[in-house]
Amino acid sequence: MDALVYWVGLAAVAVNALTGVLDAGRKQMDLIGALLVAVATALGGGTVRDLLLDRNVFWVVDQSYLTVALATGLLTFVAARARAIPPRLFLIPDAIGLALFTIVGTQVALQWHTPWLVASLMGVITGVVGGVLRDILCNDVPLVFLKGELYASAAWAGALAMIGLQQAGLSAVASAWAGMAIVLVLRLAAIRYRLTLPALGHGKPD
Amino acid sequence: MDALVYWVGLAAVAVNALTGVLDAGRKQMDLIGALLVAVATALGGGTVRDLLLDRNVFWVVDQSYLTVALATGLLTFVAARARAIPPRLFLIPDAIGLALFTIVGTQVALQWHTPWLVASLMGVITGVVGGVLRDILCNDVPLVFLKGELYASAAWAGALAMIGLQQAGLSAVASAWAGMAIVLVLRLAAIRYRLTLPALGHGKPD
Amino acid sequence: MDALVYWVGLAAVAVNALTGVLDAGRKQMDLIGALLVAVATALGGGTVRDLLLDRNVFWVVDQSYLTVALATGLLTFVAARARAIPPRLFLIPDAIGLALFTIVGTQVALQWHTPWLVASLMGVITGVVGGVLRDILCNDVPLVFLKGELYASAAWAGALAMIGLQQAGLSAVASAWAGMAIVLVLRLAAIRYRLTLPALGHGKPD
Repeated sequence: MDALVYWVGLAAVAVNALTGVLDAGRKQMDLIGALLVAVATALGGGTVRDLLLDRNVFWVVDQSYLTVALATGLLTFVAARARAIPPRLFLIPDAIGLALFTIVGTQVALQWHTPWLVASLMGVITGVVGGVLRDILCNDVPLVFLKGELYASAAWAGALAMIGLQQAGLSAVASAWAGMAIVLVLRLAAIRYRLTLPALGHGKPD
Repeated sequence: MDALVYWVGLAAVAVNALTGVLDAGRKQMDLIGALLVAVATALGGGTVRDLLLDRNVFWVVDQSYLTVALATGLLTFVAARARAIPPRLFLIPDAIGLALFTIVGTQVALQWHTPWLVASLMGVITGVVGGVLRDILCNDVPLVFLKGELYASAAWAGALAMIGLQQAGLSAVASAWAGMAIVLVLRLAAIRYRLTLPALGHGKPD
Repeated sequence: MDALVYWVGLAAVAVNALTGVLDAGRKQMDLIGALLVAVATALGGGTVRDLLLDRNVFWVVDQSYLTVALATGLLTFVAARARAIPPRLFLIPDAIGLALFTIVGTQVALQWHTPWLVASLMGVITGVVGGVLRDILCNDVPLVFLKGELYASAAWAGALAMIGLQQAGLSAVASAWAGMAIVLVLRLAAIRYRLTLPALGHGKPD
């Protein structure tokens, strides 16, 4: 399970760094600005989780996370300048990053022996905060909160399912893969079929 | 005093969760989005205080705060959908939350033996940050900073008064209630009579 | 070196508090609002650094930083109300604050034995975060990310140079002064001559 957390974490960092650069590209940021957005997107969620849990912040202890974020960001920047990446392709890697980070975050919190409800919220925070930071830094409205499509809800459902499956006796690794699949399927289905939850409808959205 | 901090803290969490959902309702957020805003509004101020003081974050250790925030948020969401709550009623609970959190935050910092000026600022941070997060997540301008009405000023005055009364020999509990009353009266009077402090007036506000 | 870090840190706090009040003045904030922006600008970068490194937050332990920030903020407010300060003079102190904080942040991280790449990023964070907080609180777009002029890039170059010079055998104090000069010269030259880095140019900036 530790190996799973490690490698899935590195993959999530790479995927999120990629989405950060793609988003920064829409705003004509320069190289360093794009790299910093990539770093914030890739490392933000796990950083907030570690601060809340009073753990050592993962990328301060192990430089490989920061290296992967910078290298992926640089490659994406070069590829995007060469127009090798369609600039709007980013909902898919964003959904993958959400799924990976949510499951890693939940697992880390469980191993830290937080109560289960707190652990599920740590999963959501780990999954969502990187993208929120990216949106704030790029001066977008954080879509996670405003849009009707399942985002945080998909992450929360996956985190709760993973915890429930572990409680029901399934192995930690199998529960993690199941939770990951649930987040990914819910999020992609929500994008494709515009699934929404009930909303409060006083007034109009801005 | 510990009991006072605990119960006043829970009350402040509930009141702030309510204001978070009311604000989210104006932006047509869905259920999970509104609950997350409620959680951020209810737990944000105390979280920043605990991180700055290097304490265990209060709601990670004791799940009851998170449960109260989610339950209050859910009830408010249901009531708001049934149009049982006038959507603009939220300055009063917001002022109550400000007063409760300011006093709890100051007391926690004093017990942690910070210098008095730092303790008063911790009270302001605990009182104000939840509402600032709510405003940022709902994409409003954080009114605490821009508007002329006493807000952070009311919190700071109450925190300083509470510390001064304790130094003058008043019991901790009595000082806390006095400080709470000062914040609440100043804030409500400022709303009612549009009390303001001197401002810098170069240019025009946006 | 400890004395250098201490005094340069205090100077950086004062300079950043000044820029915070000048920026708040453009938004007609009142006295307390302007002081809080000053405090956030002056203490924000070092706070994030200390949280990430799991150090004691510098201004919570030593009240003098907070006192300097408040006193400088108050003086600036009075001077600005008397129109003794041209409201647009703030790029110079902002550049000085960037240089001072970057070098202090890098040095603190090195003494905390982080890997070198992490240490350089800590320098950038310490230098940049205060100004980002100021811009967010004043509801400006954080210029550090959007504008083509070297900002974070200047900080990063100075931090890396300082680390490299130390590795090459130069004394810590001399390396610090050299790094500081590099940040300042790059930033001021970028303002004067509009130096920029390559940018991603899909679509138009907002």
